Amino acid sequence: MLTYSFANIGSDSLYIHLYKCLKNDILSGVLSPGTKLPSKRSFAKNLGISVITVESAYEQLIAEGYVYSIAKKGFFIADMQEGSKVSQILIEDIRKKPEDSEEKYIADFTSNATLSAHFPFSIWSKLLRDVLNDFQKGIMDNAPSGGTVELRDSISKHLHAFRGMHVNPSQIIIGAGTENLYSQLVQLLGRDKCYGVEDPGYMKISKIYKSNAAKCKFIHFGEDGIDISDLERQKINVAHTSPSHHFPTGVVTPISKRYELLGWASKSDDRYIIEDDYDSEFRLVGKPIPTLQSIDTTEKVIYMNTFSKSLSSTMRISYMVLPKSLVTLYYEKLAFYTCPVTTLTQYSLARFIDRGYFEKHINRMRTFYRKQRDFLVSQIRNSKINEFATISEEDAGLHFILKLNIKCDDDEFIRRMERRRIKISALSEFCHNMEEKSEHCFVMNYSSLTLEQIREAVSEIVQEVSTLLKL
Amino acid sequence: MLTYSFANIGSDSLYIHLYKCLKNDILSGVLSPGTKLPSKRSFAKNLGISVITVESAYEQLIAEGYVYSIAKKGFFIADMQEGSKVSQILIEDIRKKPEDSEEKYIADFTSNATLSAHFPFSIWSKLLRDVLNDFQKGIMDNAPSGGTVELRDSISKHLHAFRGMHVNPSQIIIGAGTENLYSQLVQLLGRDKCYGVEDPGYMKISKIYKSNAAKCKFIHFGEDGIDISDLERQKINVAHTSPSHHFPTGVVTPISKRYELLGWASKSDDRYIIEDDYDSEFRLVGKPIPTLQSIDTTEKVIYMNTFSKSLSSTMRISYMVLPKSLVTLYYEKLAFYTCPVTTLTQYSLARFIDRGYFEKHINRMRTFYRKQRDFLVSQIRNSKINEFATISEEDAGLHFILKLNIKCDDDEFIRRMERRRIKISALSEFCHNMEEKSEHCFVMNYSSLTLEQIREAVSEIVQEVSTLLKL
Repeated sequence: MLTYSFANIGSDSLYIHLYKCLKNDILSGVLSPGTKLPSKRSFAKNLGISVITVESAYEQLIAEGYVYSIAKKGFFIADMQEGSKVSQILIEDIRKKPEDSEEKYIADFTSNATLSAHFPFSIWSKLLRDVLNDFQKGIMDNAPSGGTVELRDSISKHLHAFRGMHVNPSQIIIGAGTENLYSQLVQLLGRDKCYGVEDPGYMKISKIYKSNAAKCKFIHFGEDGIDISDLERQKINVAHTSPSHHFPTGVVTPISKRYELLGWASKSDDRYIIEDDYDSEFRLVGKPIPTLQSIDTTEKVIYMNTFSKSLSSTMRISYMVLPKSLVTLYYEKLAFYTCPVTTLTQYSLARFIDRGYFEKHINRMRTFYRKQRDFLVSQIRNSKINEFATISEEDAGLHFILKLNIKCDDDEFIRRMERRRIKISALSEFCHNMEEKSEHCFVMNYSSLTLEQIREAVSEIVQEVSTLLKL
Repeated sequence: MLTYSFANIGSDSLYIHLYKCLKNDILSGVLSPGTKLPSKRSFAKNLGISVITVESAYEQLIAEGYVYSIAKKGFFIADMQEGSKVSQILIEDIRKKPEDSEEKYIADFTSNATLSAHFPFSIWSKLLRDVLNDFQKGIMDNAPSGGTVELRDSISKHLHAFRGMHVNPSQIIIGAGTENLYSQLVQLLGRDKCYGVEDPGYMKISKIYKSNAAKCKFIHFGEDGIDISDLERQKINVAHTSPSHHFPTGVVTPISKRYELLGWASKSDDRYIIEDDYDSEFRLVGKPIPTLQSIDTTEKVIYMNTFSKSLSSTMRISYMVLPKSLVTLYYEKLAFYTCPVTTLTQYSLARFIDRGYFEKHINRMRTFYRKQRDFLVSQIRNSKINEFATISEEDAGLHFILKLNIKCDDDEFIRRMERRRIKISALSEFCHNMEEKSEHCFVMNYSSLTLEQIREAVSEIVQEVSTLLKL
């Protein structure tokens, strides 16, 4: 119900003050035309004033045309045909962005979103309903800071089945997105450590470390993974890397390099590796590759994954697996935090995994993404720009690299594609040290696109490249 | 499906390697008795090996008694009657806590949980279903970093109706619990600022500031609110306070002191007030008190609230309202973060508010809590310890202070109540400077208790106090 303060009304009478408050809200658009005002009795009770005071204020507003009354129905805000403009404009500001970009582009190769049509809505809806019926007490009990036992149990089983990892549920910490977990790791490992992030790499990671007041340096990431001599040279304590599938290059760190990396970490007590396994579910071809975590015998690897790629980027659930040596420290230092993910979502996701829906979903999506990739690759291969295009690292994850044999610089090509309503990013945008020789390489992230969008987008790319090459 | 790596099998043949992997998992309990193994064909396909290799591994395991087969049904793990012991013990460790405390206590006066019976499960379930039907595209689109437009819009309207606040949705930032927002505020306002928290107060707040590497000092909180001379003396930049209802004392900061506080903040550009309005919905008696935010004309107040008290502590949704002067800075510095609350919950909560369910829920709960409080107070008043008990600050929020005229020190009384299976906390536990003279005051948080629990608990308190006073 409407609430106004009578604490500071100056020389106004109570009814004049109430009248002013209401009028102000009507003019500013907070009370919109047609809105029903509270009944005089309940409003008076709520504000701790007399019914007569409310009545007088209402009468004044009716007299001035701000309010009208309908017999036996109550009092309503009149349509003033203006007001609320300022407020409306600001509200529209925050509204604009998503719709904007959607209409603007034929295809967006930079988006990490997943297609809404593929989310298992009916299963998820059923699971939520069942959990709300079956776990009323559990849903209302605060979860341990690491997350509900049920979800950590399910993830532990999933990691074993999918990644061959042996993880005790107590090692798993549930977070509201990996961003939240990076912040926790800085608090756990300390701000005196130096964090090394990949270059090229996902720039948001370094922003998060810096915003959390941690020292952060860029480490050269080459054709066989992160550069270990650079880790040594820059005196890194914590190496943040994605050995299963690097973004944006798509490089898979070979097994020998993985052992070298573990060797680097084992040389000092304060060294750790954060293994970011963000899209390993979607290795589309070939044998599974073991995680660093599963071959680590020295308790140096913090494994991290998310349901953003495998389920939806809007789900905001991620998790990390701490080595046993860090579990106790975590509980000592950070157990005062409350797990930031609502228990209902945790219970539902646990069931989703336990009942095999997650595995089915991943398998279905893997098949779908394989088709999508094949279609995108074939559209390029069968075009007249084929001999000027090199496709690499297309076997894993949901993006690959398209290298074009053109002279036009990356910014200019991106602008040209923008004019054709195609959003695309260049590998060079992800490089911190611009001496990297990754010009003319573009990141083709296809997870959010339909086949129709892919067809149209490739046609635009072909036209643009043909123009540039005068084909 | 089960996944094993064949990357590093040494001199073993493929089938021996697979056999070893499976055996290892059976012995460690990861594959539990009765579990069905994948069919030979699908397992082979998944691992990228031949069907014959899988068959050979299965045969070896059957020969050694680890696996048995049932004709036309498949292969199953045998019961080994041991193994998995170590892992089980650790899993039980994280399982124990919630069940433990529940059985241990007749009543827990320290819990901030809400009674599960009062959560509007059926409405929530219906809303989730509707939102999953109506907003499939919206749910899968990443929300702006401040949260979905829909929820910020609903909260803006709610704040106007309930707290008389005029807030533009763009000023509202949605967080996964207030803890998450404190961390964001440290990143927004900077670690060079000194944050002042209330003493006595909610200790978790200072822990969060410290864990986020912000300077944090304890400010004396007296009978009329936070001590402004102490803010000056300790050179505080950001004062964190709960003027509407302080925890644990229950003190409501009077209006004159509120203006003084705004005066303090306006004296320097780098001063701000964080107004923590965590349970203002449950002021049980008297007129609404205006928020600091609504009387602030100098853009110094960051208003903060949560749905933990008003809906459920397990919901993990909170929000803050930035003064307009900080909105731009927020977008410059922190817009790279993703909003940590799942879009589905945001859309559902927006509908819950818009359709009036939230208002109805609060009104129902306010009536319920008033009854609960009255019952608890009357149980004490009508007992033989009445003349030794003083109840204060019972008009707001979901707790009050019970001062007992006993000699026994607080720790000892808490231990004695613990033996009677009553969990209770003393005001002195929330004091950082122990010179505070708040001995024999206990915090009676009743939101999680049934009337039956209250009756039993008071009976135990009465018996203990009677014993101590030799009544």
